[in-house]
Amino acid sequence: MGAAILSDLLTEILIPVAAFVGIAFALVQWVLVSKVKLSPEGPDSASSNDNNGYTEHLIEEEEGLNDHSVVVKCADIQSAISEGATSFLFTEYQYVGLFMVAFAVLIFLFLGSVESFSTKEQPCTYSKYKTCKPALFNAIFSTVAFLLGAVTSVVSGFLGMKIATFANARTTLEARKGVGKAFITAFRSGAVMGFLLAANGLLVLFISINLFKLYYGDDWEGLFEAITGYGLGGSSMALFGRVGGGIYTKAADVGADLVGKVERNIPEDDPRNPAVIADNVGDNVGDIAGMGSDLFGSYAESSCAALVVASISSFGVDHDFTGMCYPLLISSMGIAVCLITTLFATDIFEIKAINEIEPALKKQLIISTALMTVGIAIVTWLALPPSFTIFNFGTQKEVKNWELFFCVATGLWAGLVIGFITEYFTSNAYSPVQDVADSCRTGAATNVIFGLALGYKSVIIPILAIAVSIFVSFNLAAMYGIAVAALGMLSTIATGLAIDAYGPISDNAGGIAEMAGMSNRIRERTDALDAAGNTTAAIGKGFAIGSAALVSLALFGAFVSRAAISTVDVLTPKVFIGLLIGAMLPYWFSAMTMKSVGSAALKMVEEVRRQFNTIPGLMEGTTKPDYATCVKISTDASIKEMIPPGALVMLTPLIVGTFLGVETLSGVLAGSLVSGVQIAISASNTGGAWDNAKKYIEAGATEHAKSLGPKGSDPHKAAVIGDTIGDPLKDTSGPSLNILIKLMAVESLVFAPFFAAHGGLLFKIF
Amino acid sequence: MGAAILSDLLTEILIPVAAFVGIAFALVQWVLVSKVKLSPEGPDSASSNDNNGYTEHLIEEEEGLNDHSVVVKCADIQSAISEGATSFLFTEYQYVGLFMVAFAVLIFLFLGSVESFSTKEQPCTYSKYKTCKPALFNAIFSTVAFLLGAVTSVVSGFLGMKIATFANARTTLEARKGVGKAFITAFRSGAVMGFLLAANGLLVLFISINLFKLYYGDDWEGLFEAITGYGLGGSSMALFGRVGGGIYTKAADVGADLVGKVERNIPEDDPRNPAVIADNVGDNVGDIAGMGSDLFGSYAESSCAALVVASISSFGVDHDFTGMCYPLLISSMGIAVCLITTLFATDIFEIKAINEIEPALKKQLIISTALMTVGIAIVTWLALPPSFTIFNFGTQKEVKNWELFFCVATGLWAGLVIGFITEYFTSNAYSPVQDVADSCRTGAATNVIFGLALGYKSVIIPILAIAVSIFVSFNLAAMYGIAVAALGMLSTIATGLAIDAYGPISDNAGGIAEMAGMSNRIRERTDALDAAGNTTAAIGKGFAIGSAALVSLALFGAFVSRAAISTVDVLTPKVFIGLLIGAMLPYWFSAMTMKSVGSAALKMVEEVRRQFNTIPGLMEGTTKPDYATCVKISTDASIKEMIPPGALVMLTPLIVGTFLGVETLSGVLAGSLVSGVQIAISASNTGGAWDNAKKYIEAGATEHAKSLGPKGSDPHKAAVIGDTIGDPLKDTSGPSLNILIKLMAVESLVFAPFFAAHGGLLFKIF
Repeated sequence: MGAAILSDLLTEILIPVAAFVGIAFALVQWVLVSKVKLSPEGPDSASSNDNNGYTEHLIEEEEGLNDHSVVVKCADIQSAISEGATSFLFTEYQYVGLFMVAFAVLIFLFLGSVESFSTKEQPCTYSKYKTCKPALFNAIFSTVAFLLGAVTSVVSGFLGMKIATFANARTTLEARKGVGKAFITAFRSGAVMGFLLAANGLLVLFISINLFKLYYGDDWEGLFEAITGYGLGGSSMALFGRVGGGIYTKAADVGADLVGKVERNIPEDDPRNPAVIADNVGDNVGDIAGMGSDLFGSYAESSCAALVVASISSFGVDHDFTGMCYPLLISSMGIAVCLITTLFATDIFEIKAINEIEPALKKQLIISTALMTVGIAIVTWLALPPSFTIFNFGTQKEVKNWELFFCVATGLWAGLVIGFITEYFTSNAYSPVQDVADSCRTGAATNVIFGLALGYKSVIIPILAIAVSIFVSFNLAAMYGIAVAALGMLSTIATGLAIDAYGPISDNAGGIAEMAGMSNRIRERTDALDAAGNTTAAIGKGFAIGSAALVSLALFGAFVSRAAISTVDVLTPKVFIGLLIGAMLPYWFSAMTMKSVGSAALKMVEEVRRQFNTIPGLMEGTTKPDYATCVKISTDASIKEMIPPGALVMLTPLIVGTFLGVETLSGVLAGSLVSGVQIAISASNTGGAWDNAKKYIEAGATEHAKSLGPKGSDPHKAAVIGDTIGDPLKDTSGPSLNILIKLMAVESLVFAPFFAAHGGLLFKIF
Repeated sequence: MGAAILSDLLTEILIPVAAFVGIAFALVQWVLVSKVKLSPEGPDSASSNDNNGYTEHLIEEEEGLNDHSVVVKCADIQSAISEGATSFLFTEYQYVGLFMVAFAVLIFLFLGSVESFSTKEQPCTYSKYKTCKPALFNAIFSTVAFLLGAVTSVVSGFLGMKIATFANARTTLEARKGVGKAFITAFRSGAVMGFLLAANGLLVLFISINLFKLYYGDDWEGLFEAITGYGLGGSSMALFGRVGGGIYTKAADVGADLVGKVERNIPEDDPRNPAVIADNVGDNVGDIAGMGSDLFGSYAESSCAALVVASISSFGVDHDFTGMCYPLLISSMGIAVCLITTLFATDIFEIKAINEIEPALKKQLIISTALMTVGIAIVTWLALPPSFTIFNFGTQKEVKNWELFFCVATGLWAGLVIGFITEYFTSNAYSPVQDVADSCRTGAATNVIFGLALGYKSVIIPILAIAVSIFVSFNLAAMYGIAVAALGMLSTIATGLAIDAYGPISDNAGGIAEMAGMSNRIRERTDALDAAGNTTAAIGKGFAIGSAALVSLALFGAFVSRAAISTVDVLTPKVFIGLLIGAMLPYWFSAMTMKSVGSAALKMVEEVRRQFNTIPGLMEGTTKPDYATCVKISTDASIKEMIPPGALVMLTPLIVGTFLGVETLSGVLAGSLVSGVQIAISASNTGGAWDNAKKYIEAGATEHAKSLGPKGSDPHKAAVIGDTIGDPLKDTSGPSLNILIKLMAVESLVFAPFFAAHGGLLFKIF
């Protein structure tokens, strides 16, 4: 076997150091962003100390507008958005908090009941000759880990929202100086969020492991099983965050567009539209807070999946702490790599024109992937012994360290492939989106048909990439290989989050520009940033889904081992019906979320119409609309409507496991995984493509695009309809589906001891 | 074990008798339909000999129109449609014929190569102590069975089309006398098709078995394996029929609607629309010929699946011919039961008002299911010994005859449940479609969002019904149970086809009424028939999909046995990646077919616009449009575009089996099954719901509906967009998907000996 080069002590030091470096870097970026002052004197002082060769004239000055009043307006709008988002999140967290406490009690009761709340030590599950900690304490620690994960997820989402609402108006103001300035502000803010989240997730996990170890000592099997609760907590919060935030943002967005853009023919984000503040709040609670929670959940789960498998492999059995911490070391290296990558965007390359934005973001992906490949090699070489054994469904498989390198690298590169394919299908620089835009000539119907077909088609290569990484990594290192492949895909999460968060920030910046009455040229710049943001959002979703597939499979493998099933044979009816029902769940879930968005949007439309019809002077811009009522409609709808889909996901594993048993539950997990991945990818890409087809027509950058425009033309109207349909697909049901598949898997894993002991009641009765 | 009550001789007599009774009944119905004369004297003579108490006045006469010229016009239009359809089908069959010959050669070569084209007898696969016929002859007979299936499928589709184009104008003419008369004509014509197909399929299969037996003698294992080729042939033709016909009809329909209804504001089927003949031809080649081939394929496959499992169970091993023929006896009983059921619609109950149409069709479902339950009990009691054994993955499971009764009955009743749920979600008498219609108030976007959500939601109960029937029938009688459950669902196929074919006939009747310039009251009647037809079409698709799921599973089970795999373990990477890729295939396939419809529709739109813009007097109705060019566009597009999706389905099993081996292929089959079923159901129901939401607004039968209308209002325009999007979903990609899952399964089964011998090349090389 041999020993690793890296000592346990150094591991104990390196991980927190990496986390702190990440946090420090995030703070530096924050300071840089905050130099853009949101007070009337601000812009001048900011421009004086940071001249990179851009044109520093303010467009507003050229056009003779009063600069000071614009800045004040921006600051006002920003604080309205920030307050709306904060108030919504607090409301959401109250409800979700109650649910979390109830679920924590459930975890304790279910897991405690496995050995009838006994406080006696028991033989370990995998190493029968050893004794492990009592089930009661496993129940307690699992519950604590669950709550820790939930709280970290909440903090991640909340911090993200705060940063985004801090940055949006600043991006608008910087857009006056040039697209490059605005890009850097938006991207830096994204980086603040990315690094804070990545570092925070790593740090909390690392501290938890060390604290839990104080009690568990040498019982690593129990220790890392309890730690799995961390993933469950993170993901459950992410589910509610994504669904609630997704319904909020899309109800407002769809409602605002349907009346404002379609009926009243006023621009997007026009301050006369009563739903405009709700729409902008939505971007922050859905696309930012929801996504932050989501990616934190993915990260937590993939780490937990890897750790739980490692704990019953030679790392755990031989108490090789450095080997155990391999997943955390990969993440630590990820922070360092992303730090360097970020500098390329903010300090090394410069953006001078609109068409350089997308390539710059693409470069981020390529650079981080290339550097990370080296990083993985270094970590693998330092942290792993030359050879070791990995648990593989009851047997131990011998694995060499370079084989594990290939597992992680496969995941990493599969992520890049998914990213590029997603870009190809959702960016308006390529033919798929242009074809969709072209189909708008014949109206909304052909636009929808082409868009749906595009989404379906975009599934092919990502699925093949995932299939190849599963095949390679499983053959090299069984389920552990798949878990670290997922981790590889997520290792550059800080960069991924940065380019992902950048989108909604730019979207908001555009909204603020419109509301503050700034010139068209500024709006054009923020629109260009936003168009690139749509593509990166789709890429981010692609990563989230791809990694979710791998994570779920790894968790599924761990669940099967823990539930003591040796095969999951499709040919047994219990498994097959599970597979069939599992494949149905994403449809059920999507039906709920889409309908919720639709109903909430209808209410919003009625309210917006009512205001336009009853408030005199609203269309003329002499009276202010009643923004608060629209905010309330979105808030109420999302709080109320997030409960049924949330309950569906959270309760299905419990009900199936308890009544139908672990075989059927295995089928359900596999079915929802293979079916959900497809719907999630196609929904995200269809939505992204429609949005960018619309932007393509609006921007009119080519002859072809001009022939479809301008704004208000029939093809443009058809494109707006497609965009509106895509909203719930890409921002509500699509991205929630990856949480569905991960969450059901991690929940099954946490409850596995209970199901194995008491599950399958229905078959026991009959 | 005991013996059956029914002797082998009686079985040999009863099956063909049932088939001939079915054919005779079809001919009687044909004669009744043909009494409606398509010559100027006709209607009067027809009305004189058949007075059921309806009002016999012709509306046309009341309104003082020239009756004779209308009849001549109808006859002309009918012959134009019939000629167009015949010419298209001949073109299609030429291409498909070439493909079939090539594929037949492939079957012969692949299967012959298993034992290197040896002509020596060999030990049987399942009964090692016996000798079976040489592999070369199995290859020859499989090829012959394949061709027989293909030809029967072609004949079924072609006959269906001929009957439908014979009946459409007659339905129009009868609509002048009342909705009841029109209903009976359309329904009788549907029955002609239903009974001919059911009887024909049974007869050809029965004759083939008897002829093959002359060579095979006691080697029933080889005999029924070769017979499986019949299912493959039927299904391959069905695939091309459904896809080609589906693209044809929807390209014309979408193209006609986009210009005619949306841009020019002229009614559907207006004779001024150049695409109107192509649209009506499309109904006959897609919804009639395609569906006929499809349901024949389902029937052939479920019979073959049951037979191949029976051949290695005690029926086959003990050479119990009556027991072997149990599936055929069920189908024979089905013909008798459907015959009685049809009389309820045509002779016992009377339709007097528009709102009685849907209940009458629903009654057909209930009556046939109730009677068939008794029928199954009788057949089971007569044809089966009290107990016998069924092959169950290497072991023999003891089964009692009443257990098999429950298997068939479970399938039958699951079909009814699927039928009712489909009706609930697609009929405009219930709240789901009304909600969708209501969402049109806020435009096309909300209509699409609600429609998609409706389709997703409509999946839940059918999937649970299928899951329950799988669980029950597998537990009672292993894979044989599932095969006969599928057969149970299809046992009332004659009635199913009758109510299914009735829809497009009514649709065409409405088109002819419009084109012949008949009054609005006639159009209202045919529209009401057509609205019910949309629902029954969705029900028919529900049956087709539900039975496809069961059939595929049974075929999959047979394939696994034949390929000598003992488990299909999801936890092995080979199987899992198969599952993932399999779940992706329906998306790939749908992307192709949707895009094909979209592109063909775009071409059609351009042509229709061109004619409107360049032919003077067209809009005024003084000049005739150039129908032929539109027919040619649909023909060319469908012939060209049906090849890639067809190749995807036909080649995937061959490529996966040959290069990745039987484990991955098992995964692909299971994955495409569980994923395809969901997309197919949701696509069909979404499309059906949109179509009926539009009809709901147009009919304006309630206060609510009136508030959304009339034709041409904004909500109605939004509804038309939804309807257009639904067209390719419900008539092209949705219904083709059930063929995809069945066809891949039956193809894998036919090629199983080859894959088992030579498959998995890629893994053998590396």
